[in-house]
Amino acid sequence: MREFVVVGHEVPVDPDFPLDDLAGGAGRLDILCRCVAAAFLRSHGLRTDVRVHLVVQDRLTLRFDGAELRYLSPEERNVASLIRHGLAAAEEIVGRRPVESTPGITVANRTFAEVIDGLEGTPVELHEDGDPVVEFAPPDRPAFVLSDHRDFSTAEADRLASAAAARVRLGPERLHADHAITIAHNFLDTEGYTVY
Amino acid sequence: MREFVVVGHEVPVDPDFPLDDLAGGAGRLDILCRCVAAAFLRSHGLRTDVRVHLVVQDRLTLRFDGAELRYLSPEERNVASLIRHGLAAAEEIVGRRPVESTPGITVANRTFAEVIDGLEGTPVELHEDGDPVVEFAPPDRPAFVLSDHRDFSTAEADRLASAAAARVRLGPERLHADHAITIAHNFLDTEGYTVY
Repeated sequence: MREFVVVGHEVPVDPDFPLDDLAGGAGRLDILCRCVAAAFLRSHGLRTDVRVHLVVQDRLTLRFDGAELRYLSPEERNVASLIRHGLAAAEEIVGRRPVESTPGITVANRTFAEVIDGLEGTPVELHEDGDPVVEFAPPDRPAFVLSDHRDFSTAEADRLASAAAARVRLGPERLHADHAITIAHNFLDTEGYTVY
Repeated sequence: MREFVVVGHEVPVDPDFPLDDLAGGAGRLDILCRCVAAAFLRSHGLRTDVRVHLVVQDRLTLRFDGAELRYLSPEERNVASLIRHGLAAAEEIVGRRPVESTPGITVANRTFAEVIDGLEGTPVELHEDGDPVVEFAPPDRPAFVLSDHRDFSTAEADRLASAAAARVRLGPERLHADHAITIAHNFLDTEGYTVY
């Protein structure tokens, strides 16, 4: 299992945003859409051993489970539509209980700190200022944590600093979050690649 | 300089397609949009030492030059809009002369074979059935050639087989074209990474 936590700082919690303006009115939701696609989609089919947590404004969290996920295609507009369904389903939340919006996608009242505390895997921060990945021995169940176009807030950074096993950067170039997910997958995929 | 040639088999040459249906009515133009974004965009700014050739239906080719490119943001809809401008400008083509549609983007009557023959760099095929990249010593000026959601046609594959210096796959998993571009960049970026 590989987990990814992606923090959306400006994505609206209200699902009433236009699919035609993901980079503007939807608070750079386009980035989160590409992150979801990068986390799950291979050329042929889904990675079923992946889980993604999208934290929206430190209040709501959408969880995507690869083993149960349906209707996901890589186009941004498609992913945004699934996320919008998830945000709409948040109206049905009672207390702490998650609500399933479409197969494999649930939404719950969860802050960033709660998501980090609830991870099954070991948190690993992906950050431009982290240590080079070439020196990094990944844990058995890595949970990569990364931010959208904005940096982590001070509170998020503090929470991560105490929880994360490592702070890693994936190359000398500063990357978009979705590209970082693609490279993190490839890094794990190619461990032992020479004998595959 | 790094070059990428991406073949779009079903993208319409007619610019009269809806930006709301890139994966359907626009012949999986969404893939090509993500390829362009992956080729040029870092977290902060453009890679100016990159050139991308999008071959549309083996008739028209849009060339993107990083050194001159303007108005590029990573959202699919934004890239699709630039491509639509390029296809519209194709009406002004006279003979072999390229037409610039927006800064850094030109369109010309070029087939796949003509693009391959005109590359400044050395063609390297990226393909799911290629040799593992770990055994690959990249040329000084690699020109990675890859296809959209469809495989190369027999004619394209034959042309590539005679022109390409290598046929490479980037990992054990089969990847979407845009993810392959991200990983190819990272592969080149991280050569000598330990001393950066």
